[in-house]
Amino acid sequence: MHTVLRSATKTVTIGHDQPFCIIGERINPTGRKQFQLQLRANDLSRLAIDVEQQVSGGADVLDVNMGVPLTDEPALLGRAITMIQTLTDLPICIDSSIIEALQVGLETYQGKALVNSMTGEEDRMDQILPLIKKHGAVIIALPNDATGIPMTVAERMTITEKIVRTVEKYGIPLEDLVIDPLAMPVGADPDSLKVTLETIHSIREKWGLNMTLGASNVSFGLPYRHAINAAFLPAAMSHGLTSAVMDARTPLIVEAVRAADLLLGLDPWGSNWITRFRALEASKAALNTGA
Amino acid sequence: MHTVLRSATKTVTIGHDQPFCIIGERINPTGRKQFQLQLRANDLSRLAIDVEQQVSGGADVLDVNMGVPLTDEPALLGRAITMIQTLTDLPICIDSSIIEALQVGLETYQGKALVNSMTGEEDRMDQILPLIKKHGAVIIALPNDATGIPMTVAERMTITEKIVRTVEKYGIPLEDLVIDPLAMPVGADPDSLKVTLETIHSIREKWGLNMTLGASNVSFGLPYRHAINAAFLPAAMSHGLTSAVMDARTPLIVEAVRAADLLLGLDPWGSNWITRFRALEASKAALNTGA
Repeated sequence: MHTVLRSATKTVTIGHDQPFCIIGERINPTGRKQFQLQLRANDLSRLAIDVEQQVSGGADVLDVNMGVPLTDEPALLGRAITMIQTLTDLPICIDSSIIEALQVGLETYQGKALVNSMTGEEDRMDQILPLIKKHGAVIIALPNDATGIPMTVAERMTITEKIVRTVEKYGIPLEDLVIDPLAMPVGADPDSLKVTLETIHSIREKWGLNMTLGASNVSFGLPYRHAINAAFLPAAMSHGLTSAVMDARTPLIVEAVRAADLLLGLDPWGSNWITRFRALEASKAALNTGA
Repeated sequence: MHTVLRSATKTVTIGHDQPFCIIGERINPTGRKQFQLQLRANDLSRLAIDVEQQVSGGADVLDVNMGVPLTDEPALLGRAITMIQTLTDLPICIDSSIIEALQVGLETYQGKALVNSMTGEEDRMDQILPLIKKHGAVIIALPNDATGIPMTVAERMTITEKIVRTVEKYGIPLEDLVIDPLAMPVGADPDSLKVTLETIHSIREKWGLNMTLGASNVSFGLPYRHAINAAFLPAAMSHGLTSAVMDARTPLIVEAVRAADLLLGLDPWGSNWITRFRALEASKAALNTGA
């Protein structure tokens, strides 16, 4: 199954037979006090740095979240999207929990957007899916509902089934649905990621859907987080994860993903890998000669 | 299923509910010209350095191979094992393709040894399994035979079935059998490691056997090999690999393994991970203060 995302000029395809899709996560004020103050003052200049860092780090898509309390989030998100589309041709993932913000985001965006995210509660689906249908966008859906985050594979599969049926009911093709199988911090529950990996495996077996998740989350609260995230992604990819919302600024993690592409036959004969390695060697050589 | 290895004083348990077992691979003259010359001159002094590097890097077991052309390999292997057992209390994996060398190795070794390795050909099994039985050792078996290395999961499963039956026929308990599911260089065949991962998954499902493989092999011929090996092991572990013959000198790869332990619930609450991190921080601090 191929999930297609587009900006005005560029297409990105997510699929089990495609290299992994890195959705850069950093364009988000959560936990960034200085950036929040700037956004409250309607100052979007920081976006240029964040976009550049994610793009040069190797992001394929950019997640854009403008959730700052005490601001007009829909207006801010619309302006951010317009600005980012002048800075890069990468497709955008419009990230908000506020329906009006998603609406303005989708109206502003030039292309076929990814939308982050929707839970499996019926009222949420009935609010968001008509927007997805109208704009021909792609929705990320989480298999949790009003009862909370289910901790078994069976429960996650049941809610995913409900989401699949509702998406079909709205006449949205299943390739425009991406499931987030839910990755919780392993420091809070040693067995939680085994459930995530099995859920990924089962969703791939049953529907062949594309999947994404927040990859930084898994190491929350533990030391030396990059190494944990770098080990998690190849494992999740080998079970069928096709995309992740992650920070593209850390070479260790991006390299783990590109190495896993190679190991899983998604970079035949290592042509991407070797290109990446040569670029790295060239930049080292340039540094050494002062060029 | 628990596979137990012992030296004179230390026990190591391999299992799907245990932290991954790192079998240090470096005590081997293959590709090391200087070391080969020393061994031909009966000089085993280099072993002290190799053992120290693998042990301090985090090996749980040491693979010992003394395969040098134009030497008396059985005698050399016997001397090496005696010497190594004075240097470390880690169990040893006796590695040779020569029956007489395995025989001398097993007679010399103090403890319950791992033996590397046996193919699924009947004459090889009939030579090696009586030795394994006699010494109560553990055998690594490869699901290939006279026809070569099978490239499908089904063929590897068929040969594994034959190995399982033969091992049972000799009255050897299945926990003393470790299967090597065969990892070939991904640079030679883009799909080869998908076959390996599926084989691992199937063997775990069908028999619950422990497994090991030569992990350095997968990146052969490609640049930036450490990153490829570091991505491969967490993926293989997530499918059921419980051990690997690998070089413990590279922190990137050892950390990938220990992070995967944590992610797979084999290091509950990260106690090993945090201990490792603190030791790393302490050694950095000592360097910085000149202590």
